[in-house]
Amino acid sequence: MDTQRTGPRARTGAVEPGAGRSRGRDVPPATVARLPGYVRVLRSLSQDGVVTTSSEELAAGAGVTPAQLRKDLSFLGSYGRRGVGYDVVHLSEQISVALGLTTQRRVVIVGIGNLGHALASYSVFAERGFAVVGLIDADPAVVGTTVAGLVVQPSSALSDVVSAADATIGIIATPAAVAQDVCTALVAAGVVGILTFAPRALRVPPHVDLRAVDVASELQILAFHDHRRTGTGA
Amino acid sequence: MDTQRTGPRARTGAVEPGAGRSRGRDVPPATVARLPGYVRVLRSLSQDGVVTTSSEELAAGAGVTPAQLRKDLSFLGSYGRRGVGYDVVHLSEQISVALGLTTQRRVVIVGIGNLGHALASYSVFAERGFAVVGLIDADPAVVGTTVAGLVVQPSSALSDVVSAADATIGIIATPAAVAQDVCTALVAAGVVGILTFAPRALRVPPHVDLRAVDVASELQILAFHDHRRTGTGA
Repeated sequence: MDTQRTGPRARTGAVEPGAGRSRGRDVPPATVARLPGYVRVLRSLSQDGVVTTSSEELAAGAGVTPAQLRKDLSFLGSYGRRGVGYDVVHLSEQISVALGLTTQRRVVIVGIGNLGHALASYSVFAERGFAVVGLIDADPAVVGTTVAGLVVQPSSALSDVVSAADATIGIIATPAAVAQDVCTALVAAGVVGILTFAPRALRVPPHVDLRAVDVASELQILAFHDHRRTGTGA
Repeated sequence: MDTQRTGPRARTGAVEPGAGRSRGRDVPPATVARLPGYVRVLRSLSQDGVVTTSSEELAAGAGVTPAQLRKDLSFLGSYGRRGVGYDVVHLSEQISVALGLTTQRRVVIVGIGNLGHALASYSVFAERGFAVVGLIDADPAVVGTTVAGLVVQPSSALSDVVSAADATIGIIATPAAVAQDVCTALVAAGVVGILTFAPRALRVPPHVDLRAVDVASELQILAFHDHRRTGTGA
């Protein structure tokens, strides 16, 4: 095991803490996007008592091809062992370290409508290492109510909530019209990662990462394929 | 305008109704994924009374580079006119036709928990050409309740609801453990596009398109970048 640990670690320069872009290979964004899926499958296998897995089994569980999986894992220096496969716990740990999931990250949600409610109550966040530590809404009727064990705070408290909880990630679940203002306020308060559900493009400074989930656009992409296939509307 | 209409149309073979993959250029998936964003910005410009737009303005609104925008639109045969730019209404219409958004598509949502509630009530769906026509849940306490004007039906009614409403798209907002069974039932009922929020990989036959939104994975991707930058947990 010692060799296995040292080997991979020595090759993961690009994703080790403090490693600059100049060291080792960068992990491509598409690979980063698939890593959480591998962790999910590995944890599920581990819960079922599975000790080793093959690239075929892991790939099938994650919905990718075995070739894609092997390539993705090669960026982390994980190659498995011929005839043995991957050690489930070790690989899960290795990917989690690469993703920075070994420390809990604190999240603030802005916009406690239906979607904000759903996100505040989403148990999978906790399972994956995220703690929702603050809820913010602009509506006086919502402020002061308790959602998922947290009292909703007014917009004016955003900066204080972020600082007090040392939150590094903000989720925007507001209407599109106010999303940029909320985004700017979150950045000013110190968050470095933003996940937005608002259907509009947002601007963030270079040091802040932005991920956008646009549910209506996802449906439009499905409609495109349906349209191409059927050649008609419905 | 006639030339503009004929020109582009003649070049959009790959996305015209009934066009096979062999005709013209295929539209790359990444381009398809960006088209809804362009429609969103164009509609917003149109509402503000703007008649023509530049690739710079449109790109900025959609959060892409002008070069990316021009390349994406070239797949639809839309090149704009030097010194004039793009006709806002015409381009919006052209992309909408390519995406198949000119006909309303009917959507069934399975799993009416917090997230299903939020999706059922999401007004942006209607604005973008989608009608939620059916809600399904397995919980007897939820079945029979009215959400967003629709009465929630039991799982046993899934096939009937899909057929009766002629729904072509299904949204899965159930817990991960039952997502594959729901997916299989939706496919059997005749939907050809599925959008899933369940945090697990799903299998669909080749004629069905699957889009997956995994909110916790989005946070994990943000955590990865934070981790690389700070070199620490929090």
